[in-house]
Amino acid sequence: MTSDLGLFGGIYARGAAAAEVSDRAWLQAMLDAEAALARACAAEELIPGLAADEIAAACRAERFDIAALGRDGADSATPVVALVKALRAAVSEPAREHVHLGATSQDIADTALMLIAHRALGPILQDAGAAADAAAALAQAHRDTPMIGRTLLQQALPITFGLRAAGWLTGLDAARRRLAEVRDGELAVQMGGPVGARAPAVASRVAAELGLADPVVPWQGIRLRPATLAGALGALDGVLAKIARDVTLLAQQEVAEVSEGGDTDPAHPRGGSSAMAHKRNPVGAVSILACTKRTPGLVATALAAMEAEHERAAGAWQSEWGTYTDLLALTGSATAWTRELLENLDVDGERMRANLAAAPTGEEPIPAGAGELVDRALHAHRALHAHPA
Amino acid sequence: MTSDLGLFGGIYARGAAAAEVSDRAWLQAMLDAEAALARACAAEELIPGLAADEIAAACRAERFDIAALGRDGADSATPVVALVKALRAAVSEPAREHVHLGATSQDIADTALMLIAHRALGPILQDAGAAADAAAALAQAHRDTPMIGRTLLQQALPITFGLRAAGWLTGLDAARRRLAEVRDGELAVQMGGPVGARAPAVASRVAAELGLADPVVPWQGIRLRPATLAGALGALDGVLAKIARDVTLLAQQEVAEVSEGGDTDPAHPRGGSSAMAHKRNPVGAVSILACTKRTPGLVATALAAMEAEHERAAGAWQSEWGTYTDLLALTGSATAWTRELLENLDVDGERMRANLAAAPTGEEPIPAGAGELVDRALHAHRALHAHPA
Amino acid sequence: MTSDLGLFGGIYARGAAAAEVSDRAWLQAMLDAEAALARACAAEELIPGLAADEIAAACRAERFDIAALGRDGADSATPVVALVKALRAAVSEPAREHVHLGATSQDIADTALMLIAHRALGPILQDAGAAADAAAALAQAHRDTPMIGRTLLQQALPITFGLRAAGWLTGLDAARRRLAEVRDGELAVQMGGPVGARAPAVASRVAAELGLADPVVPWQGIRLRPATLAGALGALDGVLAKIARDVTLLAQQEVAEVSEGGDTDPAHPRGGSSAMAHKRNPVGAVSILACTKRTPGLVATALAAMEAEHERAAGAWQSEWGTYTDLLALTGSATAWTRELLENLDVDGERMRANLAAAPTGEEPIPAGAGELVDRALHAHRALHAHPA
Amino acid sequence: MTSDLGLFGGIYARGAAAAEVSDRAWLQAMLDAEAALARACAAEELIPGLAADEIAAACRAERFDIAALGRDGADSATPVVALVKALRAAVSEPAREHVHLGATSQDIADTALMLIAHRALGPILQDAGAAADAAAALAQAHRDTPMIGRTLLQQALPITFGLRAAGWLTGLDAARRRLAEVRDGELAVQMGGPVGARAPAVASRVAAELGLADPVVPWQGIRLRPATLAGALGALDGVLAKIARDVTLLAQQEVAEVSEGGDTDPAHPRGGSSAMAHKRNPVGAVSILACTKRTPGLVATALAAMEAEHERAAGAWQSEWGTYTDLLALTGSATAWTRELLENLDVDGERMRANLAAAPTGEEPIPAGAGELVDRALHAHRALHAHPA
Repeated sequence: MTSDLGLFGGIYARGAAAAEVSDRAWLQAMLDAEAALARACAAEELIPGLAADEIAAACRAERFDIAALGRDGADSATPVVALVKALRAAVSEPAREHVHLGATSQDIADTALMLIAHRALGPILQDAGAAADAAAALAQAHRDTPMIGRTLLQQALPITFGLRAAGWLTGLDAARRRLAEVRDGELAVQMGGPVGARAPAVASRVAAELGLADPVVPWQGIRLRPATLAGALGALDGVLAKIARDVTLLAQQEVAEVSEGGDTDPAHPRGGSSAMAHKRNPVGAVSILACTKRTPGLVATALAAMEAEHERAAGAWQSEWGTYTDLLALTGSATAWTRELLENLDVDGERMRANLAAAPTGEEPIPAGAGELVDRALHAHRALHAHPA
Repeated sequence: MTSDLGLFGGIYARGAAAAEVSDRAWLQAMLDAEAALARACAAEELIPGLAADEIAAACRAERFDIAALGRDGADSATPVVALVKALRAAVSEPAREHVHLGATSQDIADTALMLIAHRALGPILQDAGAAADAAAALAQAHRDTPMIGRTLLQQALPITFGLRAAGWLTGLDAARRRLAEVRDGELAVQMGGPVGARAPAVASRVAAELGLADPVVPWQGIRLRPATLAGALGALDGVLAKIARDVTLLAQQEVAEVSEGGDTDPAHPRGGSSAMAHKRNPVGAVSILACTKRTPGLVATALAAMEAEHERAAGAWQSEWGTYTDLLALTGSATAWTRELLENLDVDGERMRANLAAAPTGEEPIPAGAGELVDRALHAHRALHAHPA
Repeated sequence: MTSDLGLFGGIYARGAAAAEVSDRAWLQAMLDAEAALARACAAEELIPGLAADEIAAACRAERFDIAALGRDGADSATPVVALVKALRAAVSEPAREHVHLGATSQDIADTALMLIAHRALGPILQDAGAAADAAAALAQAHRDTPMIGRTLLQQALPITFGLRAAGWLTGLDAARRRLAEVRDGELAVQMGGPVGARAPAVASRVAAELGLADPVVPWQGIRLRPATLAGALGALDGVLAKIARDVTLLAQQEVAEVSEGGDTDPAHPRGGSSAMAHKRNPVGAVSILACTKRTPGLVATALAAMEAEHERAAGAWQSEWGTYTDLLALTGSATAWTRELLENLDVDGERMRANLAAAPTGEEPIPAGAGELVDRALHAHRALHAHPA
Repeated sequence: MTSDLGLFGGIYARGAAAAEVSDRAWLQAMLDAEAALARACAAEELIPGLAADEIAAACRAERFDIAALGRDGADSATPVVALVKALRAAVSEPAREHVHLGATSQDIADTALMLIAHRALGPILQDAGAAADAAAALAQAHRDTPMIGRTLLQQALPITFGLRAAGWLTGLDAARRRLAEVRDGELAVQMGGPVGARAPAVASRVAAELGLADPVVPWQGIRLRPATLAGALGALDGVLAKIARDVTLLAQQEVAEVSEGGDTDPAHPRGGSSAMAHKRNPVGAVSILACTKRTPGLVATALAAMEAEHERAAGAWQSEWGTYTDLLALTGSATAWTRELLENLDVDGERMRANLAAAPTGEEPIPAGAGELVDRALHAHRALHAHPA
């Protein structure tokens, strides 16, 4: 399913991840951070339990006006100041002073970033896992389907299509395993107060409640955690890009070894051209590349933003919100597209054999190692499933 | 005015440019391209004038469903196919066959990109011009205000604040002059048909109607025009970043030579901190940097997308839409913020003198060249106004 | 000719530009700046003419120890301090005090950057011009050679190879015209003294002597000039990348419409494979892409470095030296490779016709506009030559 | 010690890592790969043991002409073809046919890349560890030294300098722990033969001999391993950038809370200015930033290069050599500089107290959490040492 995320959303926002990083999702994540903070303060006996309950009950995104928060964000270079004000207005007078206790805007924004990342990684990892399963199925099915290997875009020596798919599989498996590690170990709560000096007890409770890691110290000026996420997302994108590039090349009519399949809705014939009825465009692969070509620049922006001044950066930190939103959404879309692409890929073994026979080295035997390598990749894939990331 | 462009729009979407690159604006620009094409075809006697009139009349964004177009865009890796279908459905049966005559999706999307860029450059150039005027006023007013010059973040030798402002001024003037050249000379219509081989007569007429340049040949695979725009936007952003970085440094309490002024709305005190009442955060400069730190990566993406396959790229082209949208919006926001920042900058000449006196080289005379250089910058600024870009 | 620029120099440092940005060339350019400064100071009667002559005579790179200067550069975060010391030691005692008069390290390093850029642009523009001529010859020769146009890597409708080459031509011509503008208008001397407040008379004389532009004010903190160069180089690289990508795709054996020709040295058969005798790898196109894929990231670094603090940046400025060196060398190499590629491209018109006939739309007529568009591109190319950039 | 790596080597090539990625080091690593391959083939009884011994003995970099290999690399878009030819010429006729058996150029270049990365990570991790120890010592020594915390470059509330240093420490520890994981788990041999289909037995033996990981399948088209390295290097660079940025800001004379110490060689006074005797420039911090500002763009290039065609990319792969060389050298230099910076940082606790007293919130108590957080960071650091990465 494509989210209704605008004119280009069909390409850039496929799958379920984009909705997890929408403005609404960001707002809810900020409110979740406020609610968890209130509960943690109550557990630490810093505020009354009733106040915490009331605050937590008020932390529902639909009660707040995103446009107004966005506008007022111009007064503080963050929307959180306005959000805290609105949240205070949304609770009874006695509870008001207990809202946002001891916290700073960055605590809420950073914890929200970690939350939306964690939530977006749900569908991303699910789609990446399904894509890996589909690649494994292709590797298995075509373990012995010969094709010509190509280097520097020139025909080289025979391989099998199973070996090609096994390469995709190992890339997908390694990238998603790493991304799962990052989700489980690096996405940490931020609850250090105005200058990062708050005692860690509250942060620990918030972390437990939100399912995020509890950091050794607040990381408001040490942006390694989001940067690590960015690197892992960018690496997955690179694997997806490789697969998509291969599909566009193999789908050339002059090669014709694979084609994108899978559209079952005659009202929406995938890849048709209004001008040229014969064409069947590789829209899945093209959409993957439309997303993945945008992410290396975003990762660079994320890394450059690590150069943060003192206890809170003046500009670098504030550049992260849009950067990570786009990075998560685009990676999510590319992953959803790749799953769909691989689950529906039509492989033309006959054409592969014909192309191989016509190649200068068509008589060369299939390397003996190809099958063994496919088996290794499949074995590693099964082992990963037995002990999932 | 801040557009209602979401939770972070107060920071990332200030000024009028963001609205010119919204989904709605993109859609209208696509429709403008279709309308101009219809009129051009009528002028070339390829379609009846009445059909062209009917088509043009139907080309109003409010008649179309952006969410539906976005969803259907997944079937073609572009929303234009669905748009053409919807536009055909919006006209009478006789006019239907005359919609989109001889064109391809890329003609519409590329021409729309050039249109939204042209439109967004309106407020960007206006705000950049006003920012330059403000910098000129600062240079004039502080032509002889001494301050300590600083290199490698260390106090060095005396300059004047007028000289600093003159540097900002020359950067703003050169960057906006170049951007105006790009707007007037590089933003060209695309109307080459499915493979870029359409005779240029229709394109010439469309260009005249839309106020865009008429290219020598279609440029669907030669992405120099958008890339040139990207470079000029990125260069302006760099100038804005320099100004903003200076302001954040000069606004440190330990330096205290400038501060952001200008908020007249007591309901929205700019830069206040909920946790620390004494603080006056440089939210304008921070917001500028939040935008400008995001653009170098976008320019890199734009340049990398020039590696386009054959007559239409498979992935690179489709990566441009989001990239240019963000680049234009962020540049627009940074420019609007800079205008506001410079128009309201509070300069503390007394503090500058005190800091200078306390500096190791405080006794050094102001270099004789400082005033002359300020005058040169002001003269060049006036000359640019006399012959505006 | 390939420079002896190391193990990967055959790919990354082809042509004559790389030598213009070597350490030796940087050093000579720094010395040229010192010599021009001495002469300008003499002309302004700030130092004796004899001292200027002696200083200028000492400004020969072979007299200095690059390794020692590099080592000592660690003490100052620039090698210029050590260079000035060494230059003082190289002249007679009376001349010593007249070395580097009123200048700062950045004056020398920035002016040297502009000089090496100017010098490297010589061969870059020459090679780009020759590449454009070769593209024009291809467009002319194949004005009516039909081939199948391809979009999204799928066969679409007929074009001519001349039209494809005409697209390359217009990209090359526009990119080099812009680069020539940048060379002639943007590469300016820097001679502002320690904090950029030096009166402009000396700078004007230095500019005249070195053939660089005379800036309105010193630009040590306003990095628009180098950033503009970076953008123009990156844009040329994008055009080169497009051409190279096309060649790799057209050279696939399954397509076989072009191949790289031109090696006349049987001792160095271009593109041969040790493992696969039948292969003829497109090494020129691959080498172009090896270079051009490295430049978008460099342009991003150059743009990000514009965020400079006060009168001299702490880090951003010092990041430029390596960045621009690489950007100029890689662009030079890619341009030299492209010239060679286009001057020797073997075009197989018969195969183009055969592929076209086999395409689904092979029966479609060649669009009437193709020839007209080729003629327009050739006409514009000739006009550019008549009034060269 | 600074390597003699050219005019800017004092800034960009400090420490021991740069020498590990020099052309000479690359060449030796390629030869090490050939030697290991020969021994592995002998162990697998594919070639005679005597031939393997002879080949291995010939694999000494000093025997080969780097300039000639570089020049000839232009014929193959890789220097390895020429190297294999030269290696064959360097052994006796009977051994000749056993050189490079079953391998392809990419096997040698990729394995060499992994080797130089592994070798460069030695000094990088050592320097990062020493930098972390120095940060720990600062955190310990200044556990209770009060200073004003600063957010958005404005004075905010009190912290301790120990807390600031504890933040640096946790960043350094996490980044180097990850980099050690990457070294030990991701840097894998490549020995897949011309199209990646070679049976894995030889690769396993080569891996064991070279101390690299044994991959599940060859990764010539799946560039996740180098990309993961790039991400981890870029993340470390971001931590170093943060530390250096803090130092430049704290070293401003208006703040004066820290200064760079440590030069003991009066012949090379660190940070002195020829023009301004009073200045003490933060050359270490500036040099770190000169390096780290260059790396985000390199990481983006590395990630973009993952979009590889088929069994060997045409351009993307070849763009990696220069990219990773620069990334490793710059990270190495920044790490060496940071170690030196932190080991010699002069902290002025009196000035910190004075600045704090003068701040608007100077009367606020030090947050109780600060000390606890420092202790947590130190405890984690000691635990990491007890179980080193």
